[in-house]
Amino acid sequence: MPDFVREIPEGDTRERMVCATCGHIDYQNPRIIVGSVVARGEAVLLCRRAIEPRRGFWTLPAGFLELGETAEQGAAREAWEEARATIAFDGLLAVYSITRIGQVQLIFRARFADAEARFAAGPESEEVRLFAWDAIPWPEIAFPSVRWALEAWHAGATAPLGAPAGNPAEGL
Amino acid sequence: MPDFVREIPEGDTRERMVCATCGHIDYQNPRIIVGSVVARGEAVLLCRRAIEPRRGFWTLPAGFLELGETAEQGAAREAWEEARATIAFDGLLAVYSITRIGQVQLIFRARFADAEARFAAGPESEEVRLFAWDAIPWPEIAFPSVRWALEAWHAGATAPLGAPAGNPAEGL
Repeated sequence: MPDFVREIPEGDTRERMVCATCGHIDYQNPRIIVGSVVARGEAVLLCRRAIEPRRGFWTLPAGFLELGETAEQGAAREAWEEARATIAFDGLLAVYSITRIGQVQLIFRARFADAEARFAAGPESEEVRLFAWDAIPWPEIAFPSVRWALEAWHAGATAPLGAPAGNPAEGL
Repeated sequence: MPDFVREIPEGDTRERMVCATCGHIDYQNPRIIVGSVVARGEAVLLCRRAIEPRRGFWTLPAGFLELGETAEQGAAREAWEEARATIAFDGLLAVYSITRIGQVQLIFRARFADAEARFAAGPESEEVRLFAWDAIPWPEIAFPSVRWALEAWHAGATAPLGAPAGNPAEGL
């Protein structure tokens, strides 16, 4: 039964939670979000959140990378879990560091793997839809980084992928 | 004092360590390594490890991203801590998922920020050197992903950055 105290371990430079009994160090590091802008032609796939935070707002299929997954496998799993979509990747569209909440987000540019572009709401989504660019409900987008990723996608949607976008100046 | 048991929390699909007393869930997710290929002309900066694992072998300046840092800030901190180098970034060179050890590595292409290209061994390095490409001690490279990143750098060293490299087929 760990009994944690806050201290700087030998050889370290930061305070960590350390078990006073066994010396185990509970490192807390940023977590990785993996997600995708899944497009069909000029339309992009968005999910209306059935869970907090930002329930009822629209987001990309995205979530925490799990142990044992590559970044792409995690993004594909999230597209299935949240939007019942089977996707294929073009490459990495954007990398965002959201320091306030300890996240690094890896957002891929993706397509539907099936010609029918099948999708449906998974358990964490109230609704899933393909939105034409001009129909995206901007005031109902769940998080700033969803907007950043959509804008990065739109800026280069038909071009080969270059270096991934980073945080815009407003989001540093 | 947490008393952890292994169970699948409600609404989850995976086993987590859950405190039987308070219900706190100890999520374990992949961690983020940030590092850089720091080049001066045709030469790249390598650090001989003063610590395990792979003590005595050569590596890139890289390490765990800490809470509160952007990926670039973490990579700059590691370049300072391990190689006493102040660096500037070209962009993201490679993203590697190392599932066996639960890591995602973000490797940047970087230069020295100062015209003198100053560097020196930090506390975790026995020695730091600039190696011309043909002088890189390949059998003494610490980790496969260091070799991958150097090869990705060499393949595009003088070109604009495109989409970042991913794991080679041998490393999936």
